[in-house]
Amino acid sequence: MQTAILGASGLVGRTMLGLLERQDWIDQPPLLLTSSRSAGTRRSFRGEELVCREVTESAFEGVGVALFSAGGGASRTWAPVATERGAWVVDNSSAWRRDPQVALVVPEVNGDRVPALVAGKGEGGIIANPNCSTIQIALPCAALDGEFGLRAAHVTTLQAVSGAGQQGRDELSEQAVLLAEGEQPDTARTGGLFPRRVAANAVPEIGPLGDDGYFEEERKVHIELRKILDRDDLAVSCTATRVPVWNGHAAAVRAVLERPAPLDEVRAALDGFPGLICDGDAGAYTTPAEVSGRTTIHVGRVRHEPDRADVVLFWVVADNLLKGAAWNAVQIAARLAGAEAR
Amino acid sequence: MQTAILGASGLVGRTMLGLLERQDWIDQPPLLLTSSRSAGTRRSFRGEELVCREVTESAFEGVGVALFSAGGGASRTWAPVATERGAWVVDNSSAWRRDPQVALVVPEVNGDRVPALVAGKGEGGIIANPNCSTIQIALPCAALDGEFGLRAAHVTTLQAVSGAGQQGRDELSEQAVLLAEGEQPDTARTGGLFPRRVAANAVPEIGPLGDDGYFEEERKVHIELRKILDRDDLAVSCTATRVPVWNGHAAAVRAVLERPAPLDEVRAALDGFPGLICDGDAGAYTTPAEVSGRTTIHVGRVRHEPDRADVVLFWVVADNLLKGAAWNAVQIAARLAGAEAR
Repeated sequence: MQTAILGASGLVGRTMLGLLERQDWIDQPPLLLTSSRSAGTRRSFRGEELVCREVTESAFEGVGVALFSAGGGASRTWAPVATERGAWVVDNSSAWRRDPQVALVVPEVNGDRVPALVAGKGEGGIIANPNCSTIQIALPCAALDGEFGLRAAHVTTLQAVSGAGQQGRDELSEQAVLLAEGEQPDTARTGGLFPRRVAANAVPEIGPLGDDGYFEEERKVHIELRKILDRDDLAVSCTATRVPVWNGHAAAVRAVLERPAPLDEVRAALDGFPGLICDGDAGAYTTPAEVSGRTTIHVGRVRHEPDRADVVLFWVVADNLLKGAAWNAVQIAARLAGAEAR
Repeated sequence: MQTAILGASGLVGRTMLGLLERQDWIDQPPLLLTSSRSAGTRRSFRGEELVCREVTESAFEGVGVALFSAGGGASRTWAPVATERGAWVVDNSSAWRRDPQVALVVPEVNGDRVPALVAGKGEGGIIANPNCSTIQIALPCAALDGEFGLRAAHVTTLQAVSGAGQQGRDELSEQAVLLAEGEQPDTARTGGLFPRRVAANAVPEIGPLGDDGYFEEERKVHIELRKILDRDDLAVSCTATRVPVWNGHAAAVRAVLERPAPLDEVRAALDGFPGLICDGDAGAYTTPAEVSGRTTIHVGRVRHEPDRADVVLFWVVADNLLKGAAWNAVQIAARLAGAEAR
């Protein structure tokens, strides 16, 4: 099957390419598609040098699955073009996530929403890859919902700069250098991607502000978590913060269950869920730096709220570039191909 | 009135000295007391050079108010010695906070627990200064409790390394240097104060683990918040995290009220509370780096939980060395002296 990556020069696109290299269901190099600005960039795939090409309408001819990670604008433009030509698009942008016609998929939770492609059938479609912080919250929430019933999820995230792509990493680097030089790294000076200085700081603002008083990242957690769990009635609230961590998102979650749940049962439900590892007792946890490079999600600090056996608090970390983006997309692509991601 | 600082060579002790310099109710230099190890250290006070002396029993003779910031062990040893000699001890350690005979004071909340000293009466006592992250949560919680009734506070903190004193700052510095050199800064190599690497990371562990599955910092928030607000029935839960921020603690708080509360009333209640500044609408906030150096507490991101007019989410930041420690202690000392801190 011919695969393609749109946005192949970006941080997530490069991570996708690295994951595709080790997929045994891929027998030919993916097409690497970029904007005209990045066309000509070279990338290595299984020892072979690939050249990024500018995306055009004809580029999608013969493509079975295209992984998109080029931002919402590019997705809105090119996903219909690709699907018209029979390609399946696994889209990592937020462009299609709220579309009722488009499945929003975390394979371990609702992988049954991914059809198995029939060779030569030629009917394309779009599958949306959820927001990075939502994916890692969705797995433990799905585990708890399935076993005990989930009434509410109250979330505070601590998110790495790699969630803002290569530009996010560059901006933190530059801010750190300015601080070390005794300068004030105001964000206008360092690219302005982050609304306030993130170096040696914590910033409770990710994305534009909505009318409801929530920044976009917080709205994503709310809306996407409900859609992934197929629970329109689920109570969700979120405070999303950016912290000076290179890679790996963390979240502190307060989960309100339908019934009191013994902690050993809670930990067993979490640890038994595909893609999830429960670190152990209430004092055990994994940090963002430690989870960076792994495809699994780690849940730790599992404990009851004082005097509430029906409320479970936990800490969850994942590599936001892998399970939060590229790995989740490759898992979806593998399902489309009737294979298993590895 | 003669004042003294025990732990004058530490980060909080030095901050206390700086604040005492500008207090017009202090007409003579404070006695600077330290362990034998730090005795002889010199500090400047209003242009005069002071020499730290080793703490002894006789050191407290004639002292009216002693500010203690030398750790729990020193407090347990020296507070009874000082009070026997008629001194009032404002103790920044956790040694006396849970003692039912000792008031745990945030002046804006329960300053009426601080007696006005009668000159020559010579009856000493202990007043406990709360934990840094608890102080900044206590003010907005008190404001909401007074106006609307507070049922529960669900807290996630993001805490700076200065909360662990000079050693905490040194350890983050060393870890950052090792990272820049391409080394793995495991904590055993950098002092071992932090349980995991904190540079470019987030660590949900502060203090020893309790039997209830909560680390000590989280227990402090729970127990001290109830005591400060005089609300033994208040539901409190906390996840406390250490982040690579030099100074300034942040907390995301979910406050459950007794009744629905319009946001303009909530913001007015917060902004009208002494020592508290409400930053504005739901999108307005202050970051830890921005609050560092200020004595006020800033509350931002004030909004309702979706579909819950009785639940308010907010973000609160304070300088943990000032309002979280030295400033709160100096405020208490000023009250003891019948004066106002400035």
